[in-house]
Amino acid sequence: MSKIKDEVLAANEAYAADFGDKANLPMPPGRGFAILTCMDARLDPAKYAGLAEGDAHVIRNAGGRASDDAIRSLVISHKLLGTNEWFVIHHTDCGMETFTNEVMGELLSKSLDTATVDDSGWHDTGAGPGSEEGRYINWLTISDQAKSVRGDVARIKGHPLVPKDIPVHGYIYDCKTGKLVEVTG
Amino acid sequence: MSKIKDEVLAANEAYAADFGDKANLPMPPGRGFAILTCMDARLDPAKYAGLAEGDAHVIRNAGGRASDDAIRSLVISHKLLGTNEWFVIHHTDCGMETFTNEVMGELLSKSLDTATVDDSGWHDTGAGPGSEEGRYINWLTISDQAKSVRGDVARIKGHPLVPKDIPVHGYIYDCKTGKLVEVTG
Repeated sequence: MSKIKDEVLAANEAYAADFGDKANLPMPPGRGFAILTCMDARLDPAKYAGLAEGDAHVIRNAGGRASDDAIRSLVISHKLLGTNEWFVIHHTDCGMETFTNEVMGELLSKSLDTATVDDSGWHDTGAGPGSEEGRYINWLTISDQAKSVRGDVARIKGHPLVPKDIPVHGYIYDCKTGKLVEVTG
Repeated sequence: MSKIKDEVLAANEAYAADFGDKANLPMPPGRGFAILTCMDARLDPAKYAGLAEGDAHVIRNAGGRASDDAIRSLVISHKLLGTNEWFVIHHTDCGMETFTNEVMGELLSKSLDTATVDDSGWHDTGAGPGSEEGRYINWLTISDQAKSVRGDVARIKGHPLVPKDIPVHGYIYDCKTGKLVEVTG
């Protein structure tokens, strides 16, 4: 048995025991917007943006990047479920700033196990076996957060399946303060 | 100005005002696991699975599908940030069960604006212009939730960049009760 699984199921039981009116929430987001943000464990978009269940779509991946899959999700969000305003929210101290495609391809070629990191960068545990597959993936790493937010907002706005009148706001979440800082320009 | 933006920023200000110890959370998830789930507005994974800030990675897209981008995120989650146990959580009454690739391609070819739905299916507003681009995307729709969970768990487990010893649990979240129901087999 898994300790984590037991903990998740116990927390879920407590949540479901006090579910109340949430059983009747409709499928389309009540407040008509969507947030694209990072999977980072320190981020809780419902808390940092004030969302209750039923309010908004939340899309999350490594970096909060405007990947093809994030755009798939955003287009479904607008076209079928009516969201009309979107937020792209990256954050300070993001793991995506700590490596490059080349580093990740090299690490994975040596071992699939978790690597270690120090001031000189990422190091493999040497636990092997690895796979060459990592060299064929674009990991969507980030070298500058403001630039990645601007680039992702531009990619979304310029996508042929995105209507020109949907506002797309760019923000950086500060992990030290909990604050959202707008990225302009 | 945007009313939604004002509301999000006001909620964020309140959250940041009581940020406390969260400023010191490290980047790697404290409880060492990751959840892949749907972007659906009714789902709050932090609440339904009992997560505090810092606990776990949360990856979300339309359907909670094991897309290439979700796998990119999961591999980063394990290889660089040490998660060792993953959950794939789809849900009842999912929007991804209401259409097919053909329906979405056809709807988008007529208009990018939000479609309407009734018992006979999706209908366009006729507000044009549309785009043919939607026909070139795999929307990863779902015809059977248990089957999609099993398929996504199998895709993740079989991926060449995923170590064989990472447990991947499959669940369906019930939107009427808030309960997680395990998908076995």
